[in-house]
Amino acid sequence: MRGLSDQFKASPVTIQKIFHRLSQEGVITARPGSGTFVAAPPVAASRRAADVRWQTVVLGPRLTDPTLASDLYAETRAGVIELGSGYFDETMQPIALLRSAASRISRRPGVWGRAPLEGTHELRAWFASELGEPYHARDILVVAGGQVALSTIFRVLVPTGGAILMESPTYFGALASARALGARLVPIPSDGDGVLPDQLGKALAATHAQVIYLQPTYSNPTGALLSPARRQAVLDLARENGAFVVEDDFAGDLHLGGAPPRPLAPEAPEHVIYVRSLTKTVAPAIRLAAIASAGPVAARLRSLRAMDDWFASKFLQDVAVDVVTHTSWPRHLRTVRRRLRERRDAAVEALRRHLPQARLGLIPDGGFNLWLQLPEGIDDLQLARDAERLGVHVHAGRAWFPAEAPGPFLRISFAAADGPQLRDGAAVLGEAMALQLA
Amino acid sequence: MRGLSDQFKASPVTIQKIFHRLSQEGVITARPGSGTFVAAPPVAASRRAADVRWQTVVLGPRLTDPTLASDLYAETRAGVIELGSGYFDETMQPIALLRSAASRISRRPGVWGRAPLEGTHELRAWFASELGEPYHARDILVVAGGQVALSTIFRVLVPTGGAILMESPTYFGALASARALGARLVPIPSDGDGVLPDQLGKALAATHAQVIYLQPTYSNPTGALLSPARRQAVLDLARENGAFVVEDDFAGDLHLGGAPPRPLAPEAPEHVIYVRSLTKTVAPAIRLAAIASAGPVAARLRSLRAMDDWFASKFLQDVAVDVVTHTSWPRHLRTVRRRLRERRDAAVEALRRHLPQARLGLIPDGGFNLWLQLPEGIDDLQLARDAERLGVHVHAGRAWFPAEAPGPFLRISFAAADGPQLRDGAAVLGEAMALQLA
Repeated sequence: MRGLSDQFKASPVTIQKIFHRLSQEGVITARPGSGTFVAAPPVAASRRAADVRWQTVVLGPRLTDPTLASDLYAETRAGVIELGSGYFDETMQPIALLRSAASRISRRPGVWGRAPLEGTHELRAWFASELGEPYHARDILVVAGGQVALSTIFRVLVPTGGAILMESPTYFGALASARALGARLVPIPSDGDGVLPDQLGKALAATHAQVIYLQPTYSNPTGALLSPARRQAVLDLARENGAFVVEDDFAGDLHLGGAPPRPLAPEAPEHVIYVRSLTKTVAPAIRLAAIASAGPVAARLRSLRAMDDWFASKFLQDVAVDVVTHTSWPRHLRTVRRRLRERRDAAVEALRRHLPQARLGLIPDGGFNLWLQLPEGIDDLQLARDAERLGVHVHAGRAWFPAEAPGPFLRISFAAADGPQLRDGAAVLGEAMALQLA
Repeated sequence: MRGLSDQFKASPVTIQKIFHRLSQEGVITARPGSGTFVAAPPVAASRRAADVRWQTVVLGPRLTDPTLASDLYAETRAGVIELGSGYFDETMQPIALLRSAASRISRRPGVWGRAPLEGTHELRAWFASELGEPYHARDILVVAGGQVALSTIFRVLVPTGGAILMESPTYFGALASARALGARLVPIPSDGDGVLPDQLGKALAATHAQVIYLQPTYSNPTGALLSPARRQAVLDLARENGAFVVEDDFAGDLHLGGAPPRPLAPEAPEHVIYVRSLTKTVAPAIRLAAIASAGPVAARLRSLRAMDDWFASKFLQDVAVDVVTHTSWPRHLRTVRRRLRERRDAAVEALRRHLPQARLGLIPDGGFNLWLQLPEGIDDLQLARDAERLGVHVHAGRAWFPAEAPGPFLRISFAAADGPQLRDGAAVLGEAMALQLA
């Protein structure tokens, strides 16, 4: 130890810590009485030559695509321009507020203990106040993020093999969660004003589905805002058909121009199950979201959730409340919106310059996505792979469709890329597309 | 405002904060230009007189018992002696380590961002090193707590209506999670040496079940430690029948005498799916657990988990690693074990004194539960209700049985009660039982 300490000019405590770490990682082995040795390379349990064929019989047919999550959620290599992320980069996170809250709240009595099953009163009250009348804290269920919310809701509402009507294209996480259940995904076409009510009506009649999944406000990927007339039509259809609307409000506070209309939920609390997550605006590590609902479904959601994971971390809930009720929170949100606006404009300009053959259907007024229609004949998956090779991470559009894609698309996110990165990224996408047009 | 500031001797900023809070909670309403008014009492969305009968048609039959979670997981009223908790009280939590870690780690770059789907390398490596050969970091999946682990595993392994063999009695959370799936719960009787292998063999043959749920080490509620011979027999049965063993190692590091045998998992990594949670030993707010598995089931677990909630909080994972690798962690664990030993001894003595008619089958060598067999004719539920009224929270034994209870029991936890509380609590239980014996 002393030799190493001299050799590397590090204190004996540091050397000790390094040895402890290496020993934990299995790189070295201490044999009491003999000394410390470099360990044999560990053989992972999963790599042992053992017969695991019997497992496949028990597991049966597969509902989830094991490559999906890896492809869509892989961490991007360092140096690669990130046009695929659904989360903000660190420059858009309220880091100072988070640090100060975490440090203070870590000393609060009871904060490392249990939380109520439904969430803390303070956080539920905040979500309710944001949603407005007629919601009250008791209508809110706090869960560990938006994806937990969706998978819980789908499990409660959709029996195995049952149908879910989903606007198309829509968020791949919702599609993945519904597929993992073995649900039948029925696509409802949409345009720049959101889902088409006449198509929705036909699908309700044809499938007898009882669940409609929508992102009415700045839908992912298209950025469409459901128009006031269609909002009314969707709620009327839900009422006439005895169906639930799952309203995924992932981007309601990310408006880039004026504020959007109120959510659907307050117009029909008994029919709408409303989801709002804090992982976008607060931080990905603050894994919290709210489900607002009314009637027997609220009790059903609550009990399934409890069976799944009891409660969400009290520490994270207290940090979240501290951040979103801080006097400087509105300013933080304004800054985020301004930067998103700048990024959107930079991205639109760069895409038009570098991919003139592609078409931006809509310049969105909110959210952080652009939905780029590629020329016929382009393979979106190949384009995304070529882009990755050239240093840009971006998603092929096909993963956003409940069924076959009607053509090739790219989803371009400006959540985690700034202006210069968006410009460089668009140039690379142009190069990647040229490979297929050549 | 100034008037209030003078009246309550509080700074204008404090008064402003109180107004802000009251306004958020809907108690007061600010009308610009008019002033601030006490708001009409809010009508919760769930309380509106609306027709929600159509919901019950969509929801269909119920698999979860909505009262179960409330009853078994309700927060205990202040002043009530807590003999029901599955979590340590704050005096047993590593509060100083948590505070220091949270404060430091809150300033670490990237800590508020995404985490890898499977968990951070550091935390996975730590879990793997604890489990030992042949496990490696890549065999570990980090999830948001032990209950998430169980519900994910059951959903992957058990089709709706399929059978799960469960030692009886066993952890109510595992029972609830299996019931929520619509599984058939098949009880396997156990004694002080754990589950009975001959009964397990018969049940495997009769049901063709492919999943066996066990807590081999200090089972909740009995505290039984599965004997070495039975450990071998269980693994042999799993191999012969092509079945998975779900090993819930909730109390492996809470041994009160010598260390227990190694977990089952390393003996048969392809057959055993191993679960270990940090919510007991680190803190309830550190909602993290590991699933160790090998073979195709590992990929299946990983993809279902990703669809359910993407990843666990990086901040919490980094805090957890910091705490469990801290040089003072072994000392903290030793302190916890010593206090648990003292509490166990105090509880045993007090129960023998105040409830001489009841029988403690086993003085456990680990964990934090005592399993008290009540005289024939006592109603365990009534006893728990009477105790609650008299100021002691304790669970009726029936919730720990997959099927009918063979008699009346109480589960008494010493996780959150110290010596004097255990003595007072036992006296109250004696009084409550006297009400039924009278």
